[in-house]
Amino acid sequence: MPFSVQTELRVRYAETDAMAVAHHAIYPVWFEVGRTDLMHALGVSYREIEARGYYLMLSDLQVRYRRAARYDDQLRLTTRTGEVRSRTMTFLYELHRVDADGSTELLATGETHHIATNKTYRPSRFPDDLLALLSQKEEE
Amino acid sequence: MPFSVQTELRVRYAETDAMAVAHHAIYPVWFEVGRTDLMHALGVSYREIEARGYYLMLSDLQVRYRRAARYDDQLRLTTRTGEVRSRTMTFLYELHRVDADGSTELLATGETHHIATNKTYRPSRFPDDLLALLSQKEEE
Amino acid sequence: MPFSVQTELRVRYAETDAMAVAHHAIYPVWFEVGRTDLMHALGVSYREIEARGYYLMLSDLQVRYRRAARYDDQLRLTTRTGEVRSRTMTFLYELHRVDADGSTELLATGETHHIATNKTYRPSRFPDDLLALLSQKEEE
Amino acid sequence: MPFSVQTELRVRYAETDAMAVAHHAIYPVWFEVGRTDLMHALGVSYREIEARGYYLMLSDLQVRYRRAARYDDQLRLTTRTGEVRSRTMTFLYELHRVDADGSTELLATGETHHIATNKTYRPSRFPDDLLALLSQKEEE
Repeated sequence: MPFSVQTELRVRYAETDAMAVAHHAIYPVWFEVGRTDLMHALGVSYREIEARGYYLMLSDLQVRYRRAARYDDQLRLTTRTGEVRSRTMTFLYELHRVDADGSTELLATGETHHIATNKTYRPSRFPDDLLALLSQKEEE
Repeated sequence: MPFSVQTELRVRYAETDAMAVAHHAIYPVWFEVGRTDLMHALGVSYREIEARGYYLMLSDLQVRYRRAARYDDQLRLTTRTGEVRSRTMTFLYELHRVDADGSTELLATGETHHIATNKTYRPSRFPDDLLALLSQKEEE
Repeated sequence: MPFSVQTELRVRYAETDAMAVAHHAIYPVWFEVGRTDLMHALGVSYREIEARGYYLMLSDLQVRYRRAARYDDQLRLTTRTGEVRSRTMTFLYELHRVDADGSTELLATGETHHIATNKTYRPSRFPDDLLALLSQKEEE
Repeated sequence: MPFSVQTELRVRYAETDAMAVAHHAIYPVWFEVGRTDLMHALGVSYREIEARGYYLMLSDLQVRYRRAARYDDQLRLTTRTGEVRSRTMTFLYELHRVDADGSTELLATGETHHIATNKTYRPSRFPDDLLALLSQKEEE
């Protein structure tokens, strides 16, 4: 099973727009928070990846919006590793709203594709130790 | 031919991130600026659409990133209408960087799908006069 | 003593800029998160304030930046009520970075002034029950 | 007279919030666009300043909000140099809405203070040629 983590988020007022719902461009920002958390859980810090001279550049973003989120809504983001290769990686996202009674509703799903690059933005093979950490599976 | 407009943008400092390039979540914001311009060119103001009681909610976003943009880069966004139906609409985007010598490079392409709703976010048929305006084609 | 709450924040990648530090315009967004938390702690939800027909419009913002914050830094924001009157309110902020060893460093201080308005943005007296809740002091 | 430039802006949908007005945290972003334009007009590009090894870090931000701006409003930002010293600089801002009939209304005023630093964020004297350019006055 792919490795996954859950991130708790609350919709900030600044994240809403004149439709009184969270603006669609904030979802990729939340996904990025999920990736940060996922990497921490895998024992890799994205800050360290950069300190070692690598970037994980986004090459493809996809978001499906099903239900809107409002200011102060409590959200639960599940982030999963998809395919992890030496030069490309995929992450998958599911965003739920968590209501006061604990019930949840699916708000959006998403997917991001990334290319490993060096600090001059050229595609570059990720170091084996990082790949090993990022490729960890969850036990069933 | 589908109707299209061009929007000139310059990368704001606030739109960059620690990779020293425009953050990927700003692209959907630029696309939205393109939609505003496209609608003005079609003789519809999105502000008026809302004043008449409708929203154009995003249901699907796709972005393909090819080259990064940097602070103060001059960009040219081309926004096109895709499918225009009574309850759903699609818009297409191409983003180029324009260099000082006038040469251009493709940075990203994108696509957004929208659902017409009323002010309570329920799917709703768009008024015929708005549909007629949004469906205009460009002469060849 | 004025009432205060602490909010834990972690710097998001999207919040950084090409200087590789958190962009200065994100600080007022964090302050707003602090106000949301402060109001919850006082037994008032800002969402309810709006549901009752009021806004708390910002009239004045001041931020003093002392040290920069970087991606993934752990931050602690302290938000305090300043003056609470029937038509205007002030909130005060102190933002610290919390290092792995628990030591802290002051990054910024700030102040926001607000005007109570109705839903047409006209200055309006806040209801007494909300004022009573917002005026609560901390016991020493 | 201090040097000044005018920047034309239109409120983006993403810049609005659930109050249906431009969120207060976007004003410092607009001011930054004004600084970029001001520097271009003075013959200095902020991108070149960074390429030469300097940053202009923000140390103090002040914004006074008088009237709200709405989606698609046409804005005119006037940016002026305040004090220009070898290690610190001040910029001043006035933001107006421009209506269809050409009449204007003052929306906000602001002020930012900056510290010249090197790339490790240490206070640093700005090069004389840059200071000379930034210190230019407007002829009366």
